[in-house]
Amino acid sequence: MIESIFEIKHSDPSCSARTGVIHLPHGDVQTPVFMPVGTKGTVKAVDKDSLEEIGFEIILANTYHMYMRPGADVVEQGGGLHGFTKWNRNFLTDSGGFQVFSLQGLRKVSDDGVVFRSDIDGSKHLFTPENVVQTQVKLNSDIQMQLDVCTAHGVTWKEAEKALRITTDWTKRAVKEWLLQRDRGYKGYLFPIVQGNFFDDLRKQSAEFVSSLETAGIAIGGLSVGEPEEVFAEKLRFTAALLPKNKPLYVMGIGTPEYIFEAVENGVDMFDCVQPTRIARHGLYFTHRGMLSIKQKRFEYDFEPVDSQCNCKVCRTYSRAYLRHIFREQEILSSMLASYHNLYFLNEMVLKIRESINNGTFMNYKASFFENFHSKEF
Amino acid sequence: MIESIFEIKHSDPSCSARTGVIHLPHGDVQTPVFMPVGTKGTVKAVDKDSLEEIGFEIILANTYHMYMRPGADVVEQGGGLHGFTKWNRNFLTDSGGFQVFSLQGLRKVSDDGVVFRSDIDGSKHLFTPENVVQTQVKLNSDIQMQLDVCTAHGVTWKEAEKALRITTDWTKRAVKEWLLQRDRGYKGYLFPIVQGNFFDDLRKQSAEFVSSLETAGIAIGGLSVGEPEEVFAEKLRFTAALLPKNKPLYVMGIGTPEYIFEAVENGVDMFDCVQPTRIARHGLYFTHRGMLSIKQKRFEYDFEPVDSQCNCKVCRTYSRAYLRHIFREQEILSSMLASYHNLYFLNEMVLKIRESINNGTFMNYKASFFENFHSKEF
Repeated sequence: MIESIFEIKHSDPSCSARTGVIHLPHGDVQTPVFMPVGTKGTVKAVDKDSLEEIGFEIILANTYHMYMRPGADVVEQGGGLHGFTKWNRNFLTDSGGFQVFSLQGLRKVSDDGVVFRSDIDGSKHLFTPENVVQTQVKLNSDIQMQLDVCTAHGVTWKEAEKALRITTDWTKRAVKEWLLQRDRGYKGYLFPIVQGNFFDDLRKQSAEFVSSLETAGIAIGGLSVGEPEEVFAEKLRFTAALLPKNKPLYVMGIGTPEYIFEAVENGVDMFDCVQPTRIARHGLYFTHRGMLSIKQKRFEYDFEPVDSQCNCKVCRTYSRAYLRHIFREQEILSSMLASYHNLYFLNEMVLKIRESINNGTFMNYKASFFENFHSKEF
Repeated sequence: MIESIFEIKHSDPSCSARTGVIHLPHGDVQTPVFMPVGTKGTVKAVDKDSLEEIGFEIILANTYHMYMRPGADVVEQGGGLHGFTKWNRNFLTDSGGFQVFSLQGLRKVSDDGVVFRSDIDGSKHLFTPENVVQTQVKLNSDIQMQLDVCTAHGVTWKEAEKALRITTDWTKRAVKEWLLQRDRGYKGYLFPIVQGNFFDDLRKQSAEFVSSLETAGIAIGGLSVGEPEEVFAEKLRFTAALLPKNKPLYVMGIGTPEYIFEAVENGVDMFDCVQPTRIARHGLYFTHRGMLSIKQKRFEYDFEPVDSQCNCKVCRTYSRAYLRHIFREQEILSSMLASYHNLYFLNEMVLKIRESINNGTFMNYKASFFENFHSKEF
């Protein structure tokens, strides 16, 4: 019997939103939680001290990237992801499946696993449900994901069914390997992934299977892969309702206010996305009044902060005019400050989401947030 | 009569090295001092909090770049360089002459000034000794430089003599304009520049003229422009010996340990260079045992710090293996950490130089520093 790692603190009376805490090897994580992505072992343009300062308790790293470079053995000898990167709070890692399945024409799936060629040097590799667990054990991930077969929005039912059949088999093998690794002293947790593409019967079948497993949490996969926002919302709602309430739910790859509120409303506890730091490098700032593109001429002589409602060190210190200047000059500082601000903004938003759930006012907060966010009055 | 801004604390008995303090509008500056370069109003990949943390009391910005973008008026309305960039300690600015004279084929010198076309948009501009002072007043530079005619290593005596003749005239005009600006409330100081290319008679003539002026400090120009190291050392020694001892001396564009020790030994108090942060972006780290290129395969499994004798947060935290990994992956964090370390290293070196001068052991410290630095035993 696997121990429970999740405590629910408050549930909102008007929807499925809840607050809680996940107990993990590198400390407690308050939920709902937005997790920044450190693809290659660093959140781009943000140092670990800044992540701590903002208050993050868990970040992601990508297994595929760490496996390719510097290699899982280097990370393991460096003390796992924590020792290697010096981020001493929790790490969640994906399985690498998503990246491998993006290698169109360079990979081949069999029942055993997936063979692929590196996009860096053309070398041949095999990912199996077992060795992907083993790699994440080397990384010492606090939460790891199983290898799954990822399919795009728009594949046929037959393709989706076949992918799910393999995924389900891989889930069983991954759980078995994980239990073996636990017996050997590994402290992290494996999350299985609900698949089934956008077909309700398949998603239901997958959700029921995954729910039957003794795992500490569950990931909802196969969403946010290019489908329209309303399709995402519908399938998320449909899937989440089929899953047990006593485990943390994780939806992969979402990081805009719209998707985050939608997910929380449906009982999702964890989410991550590269988007906040990626758009930062393109000069896009989250603000309480919508997305602000700093390069605009109108900000040339604007000495106000990017977001006067934001209390982050960027908004407390720098003017739009200066941030516009360093963005236009392609200064590294522009990426540093915008990334910091965007992560701070999302974290604050999630803090307020928690507070509103604890007060039973989540739907009110959602409405007032978006009234402000859609005003675009800078 | 211009007030003195310089106090000498200790002079080394065996050479011209001295420690002192320069009193400037944005605080005292201990000397000798290495000044990081923030070309466009930010030291590349290092935020202002880090510069304060390391302990810098003065940084540079480039007048040419700030004039072109965002424009001196934007900076002025933003509160000068300090208000605009939020670096609230001192700024030294160059005159922009060096950049303009690098625009081969795009500029034309007359007695009045230099007309040039922008390398950004082809627009036409005129720099005169007067308007360059005015621009630096808008920037609110604590120390500003006069416009001078820069010549390359290898020009004829005749060319050098002509350039010096114009420079000397421009010096007089710049000082006059600066005194006018002072009467209007400007608090910063103008440094005239010794020119004369590599000809002793011209350098002597220039040094004597510049020494006769009532300015708060003096810059030694025309060096570190591609000449061999021994020529640099010889001309520096020759020039410095001709200058008054009671004013701070500034040599532009030097930032390697070899050049810094050479300058200090000859009585130079201030120096700057982009090199420490530029090479950082190429994965080169200063260490007590020489320059270390982090990309080397030998560091793949090396979990030691870059420089075990360095106490900076990068060396106290990260391993060579991790720094190699993020450099190879071209992560922004690599530039951030390497730049921080290199600036910290040079600042610590200068702190120890000061200490050795105060103890009368500068030449001993120099010898032991280079014995270590040339060992290359990583």
